[in-house]
Order: sequence, then C-alpha cells, then structure tokens
Amino acid sequence: MAPSWTRLIRFVAEEDGHIHLGQVDEDILDVGLAAFEGVPISAKLIEGSLYDGVVSDTTMTVKQLLPPISIDQGKIIRCLGLNYRDHAKEANMPIPDEPVLFFKPPHALMGPWPEKIRIPKFVQDGSSDYEAELSLIISKTGKNISEEDAFDHVLGYTCGNDISARTEQFKNSQWSFSKGLDASAPIGPVLVSQRAIGDPHSLSIRAIYNGTVVQDSNTSQMIFSIPKIISFLSQGTTLEQGTVIMTGTPPGIGCMRDPKICLCDGDEIRVQIENIGTLINAVYYEK
Amino acid sequence: MAPSWTRLIRFVAEEDGHIHLGQVDEDILDVGLAAFEGVPISAKLIEGSLYDGVVSDTTMTVKQLLPPISIDQGKIIRCLGLNYRDHAKEANMPIPDEPVLFFKPPHALMGPWPEKIRIPKFVQDGSSDYEAELSLIISKTGKNISEEDAFDHVLGYTCGNDISARTEQFKNSQWSFSKGLDASAPIGPVLVSQRAIGDPHSLSIRAIYNGTVVQDSNTSQMIFSIPKIISFLSQGTTLEQGTVIMTGTPPGIGCMRDPKICLCDGDEIRVQIENIGTLINAVYYEK
Repeated sequence: MAPSWTRLIRFVAEEDGHIHLGQVDEDILDVGLAAFEGVPISAKLIEGSLYDGVVSDTTMTVKQLLPPISIDQGKIIRCLGLNYRDHAKEANMPIPDEPVLFFKPPHALMGPWPEKIRIPKFVQDGSSDYEAELSLIISKTGKNISEEDAFDHVLGYTCGNDISARTEQFKNSQWSFSKGLDASAPIGPVLVSQRAIGDPHSLSIRAIYNGTVVQDSNTSQMIFSIPKIISFLSQGTTLEQGTVIMTGTPPGIGCMRDPKICLCDGDEIRVQIENIGTLINAVYYEK
Repeated sequence: MAPSWTRLIRFVAEEDGHIHLGQVDEDILDVGLAAFEGVPISAKLIEGSLYDGVVSDTTMTVKQLLPPISIDQGKIIRCLGLNYRDHAKEANMPIPDEPVLFFKPPHALMGPWPEKIRIPKFVQDGSSDYEAELSLIISKTGKNISEEDAFDHVLGYTCGNDISARTEQFKNSQWSFSKGLDASAPIGPVLVSQRAIGDPHSLSIRAIYNGTVVQDSNTSQMIFSIPKIISFLSQGTTLEQGTVIMTGTPPGIGCMRDPKICLCDGDEIRVQIENIGTLINAVYYEK
C-alpha cells in the first residue's frame, strides 16, 4: 500500500515518551522552526512504517523531533560532491562529467535540534564546516534504475547538512574519513513526500550561520538532476530502501568565504529549504 | 565468552543444505584450494555466533564455501588505498601521511569460488582490476580505540580482493562509485582468529591471474600497521562489530603492468596469503 502521509516526522511523544511517526498539522509551515521556538506541535499518528504508513485520526504532542529515519534503519549515506554550478564556479573547479560520489557510514546520521553537532577534540582546529543539502530517502530497493523510473524510488525529501572536517579533507585524496565522522550528517526534521514536494529542482536552499545567511541558492543550480543521480548511483549497484542521498551543496561554504567561517563551540547552523522547512543544530566541542 | 575457533568457515552443508559456521579440520592447510580442487572438506560445527562461537564435536561436510560474514550481518566495508611502500613506489605516489580511506557498501561483499565476480556491462571496458588485500573483521564495536587496544578489536583475518573499475576510478576524484559496485569485494574463505594468525605484519601476499603470479609481496611492506589503521579509523567514528577492513594492496595491479592486465570474462583470479590460504574467483561478464 502506498503511504498516505505528505509531511512526515519521527518524534518522541509527550503522552507516552515513545517514538512515533506522525503527519505534521497543516497549519505548521516549518516544524523545525516551530520546535526551536517552543511552539506546541501536534501530529496525527502514522500507522505502519515509513514506506507504507497511513495517517490515522489519533493526535499526539511532539516532545522531541528526531531524524525521519534512524541509524538502525539507515543504510550507508550516499553523498554528492560538487553538484551545484554556482558552487563549482566558487571552488574554481570544472563541471564534473559524472556525479562525484562519497559515502558516510550509518553512525554519521543525526537529528535536528536539540541534538548537537559534536566536534571531536582532534578536529577542533577551526576547520569544521557546514554544507546545506537537499536530501532524500529511497523508498524501494533497486539496481540499474532508469532516469524515467527514478522518482518511483524516492520516498521523500528533507534538509541535510554535510558536516566536514576541512583540514582532514584537504590533506587526504579521499573524503570518507573527514566527512564520515559520527554525527556528521544531521537530517530532518520533516520528510516531504515525493508527490507533495512539487518540483524538487526549483527549491530555494539556504544555510544560516548564527543568524546570517551564508548559502543562498536554488536546487535549479544542480548539475546532475535527481533522476540522473539515482540512475547513476544504481548502475551495477544495489540502492537499498532507506538509503539517504545528500545531493550536494551550493556556494558559500565556510572554508571558501573571506574571512573563513568555522563551526565553533556554541554556534548555531540552520539549513532552510523551500517547501520543507528548517533543520537547526547547535555545535558542541567535545571535552 | 571468547570464541574457541581458530580457522572459521561459513558454509552450506551437504547433510542438511543449511548454512553453518565450522572449524576447518587441521589437516586441510588451504580450504579454498581444497574446495576448488574437489577435495572433500569436513568441518566441526561452531555453536554460537562468529563473535562467541565454540567448536563442537559434530562434524559436517562442506557443500559450498561462503564469505565468513554475510551481507546482512556485514556493515560498510572500510578500505585503505596506497598502504604498501612497494605499491606507492610503483604508482609513483608519495607515502601518505595518514591512511587513505574509502568505503564499499555492504552489497559489495561476496564469497569465494564458485561465486563469480560479475562485471556489469557498462564497465566491460577492459579496465576491471584485482587488488589482493589482507582483510580483517572487527570483533567488538569501539570508538577512539588506542593502538595498544586495537588487536582486542580484531576477530580474525581473511583474504580479500578489492575489485576496481579503473576507467571509472581515474575519471572521478572519489573512488566510492568505481570501487563500490555490487560484488566488488570477494572475501574468504577462511577466517583465521587473531590468536592463530601469528604476526599479521609478516605474511606473504600474492595475486595469481590465470596461473601467473602478478602480485608478490609481504604485509611487512604495509605503511600503516593494523593497530594504526584501527586507531585512526575509529577517531571520532564508531567502528562497528562485523565491519570488514581491507588493508590495501601491494604492487602488481593490472592497470600498472606493461602490458596491462584486466579481469575479462572467464578469467580466474586468486588471492593467496600465508597462514590463511587462497581466495579463488572466476570472472563473469554480465549479459
């Protein structure tokens, strides 16, 4: 059965302290912002899983928002580098011929505020960076998926932040270590279904660092479209249900600004995407 | 309880057609070679899991060898690039300051002969390559593991082959796609326990392509030792029980030979490591 939800959240409920899936009430335009500002949030419970869940009539109150998928359910996270024309220009890099793919391990996954981006001691070197990214979750396992069929494999869209340890990244040819640390992939809070998103290639996308807009672009700047990404990544490769794909970041990342910005202890970083909402996280330097 | 096995195999038994864990009989020095040559193999059943299994008195006959860990149990596969001094020299690359890490997804995992390395059509371009690698499996989940404690996290060692699509690899800065295809990480067949391996930094390692030795080195050539690798990879990063680590390859890979070698339809490739045995696979071009 096809899921009936359009704006899904995973949350801990006030009423029973348990984790539930819910459909966000229509009058809440930005659930991440609402939670951050202490606006009471209620949601209609979704019965079933992420993949076949049906909205019920039972309403519950949100105590804490979680990422829409858990680490246990989550598979490897597939991420694109250099997928915005304006970012390639900023980085002075040629437009790549094919998607630049790297992976984050499942333990990179983390949720929205109040969960904090924890920076381990060995990378507290002033080079921790944000990357606002439109992220999606795969609805059904596939392989060698055609561009035509690609949207049938998309469950929904959410905000993502590709936290990167730049000093490590720039001294190693491969990005798996510098971008694969625990809690380096905050996503959420809301998952907007494929049919509710509208055109995913026409969404404004911004990063806001301590209240200042630092990334401000549109998914129309993507070099490789979502069907192209899904088709490419699945060539000879099983793309599992529950896989998170992060589709690359626009210009304005901290390491390329003048002066540079880094995610330091106590900072706040937001990823804001049109029709989805705001992913907010504070930054915490581990002692 | 600590496992009592020293040379573990996962196999389908003649007697019941089910999958079991077994301890290889002491008189079989190379279980991969024995299976390939049709020598009957019996094994004492191991009761319990890979992590706490105890050898019983029940003997069963091997119908087919499997990789020591399954895709379902398997996590992301963590692989090192450029970890042999003699290979760095061959590739004319400087010795890296830190391990060069990349990941393969769980579906990359596959087993020994008769399982075939399946090359998808879009990379049947004469650039499929082998890389013989000492591989290990993590026994217990850890994070920020010290070099001193690292061997406590090693369950055992096996043979691995890092199948690489070189044309794809050389046109993309990141190796995740070109080295992450399904069935690009054959491992097995035997898993030799940490206490039975002796010194893992003093093992001859070879690749044999259609009967010709094409890689011939020793794990003493490793740039980063196994404790160093485990400690590095776990910094700020959860290293899960069941993770496979492939520790890099010595010189002699196909793309750097003159003339070049590639894995073509019907070819046979073997990875042979001292004290472990032989991983044999045929190559199959998908239609």
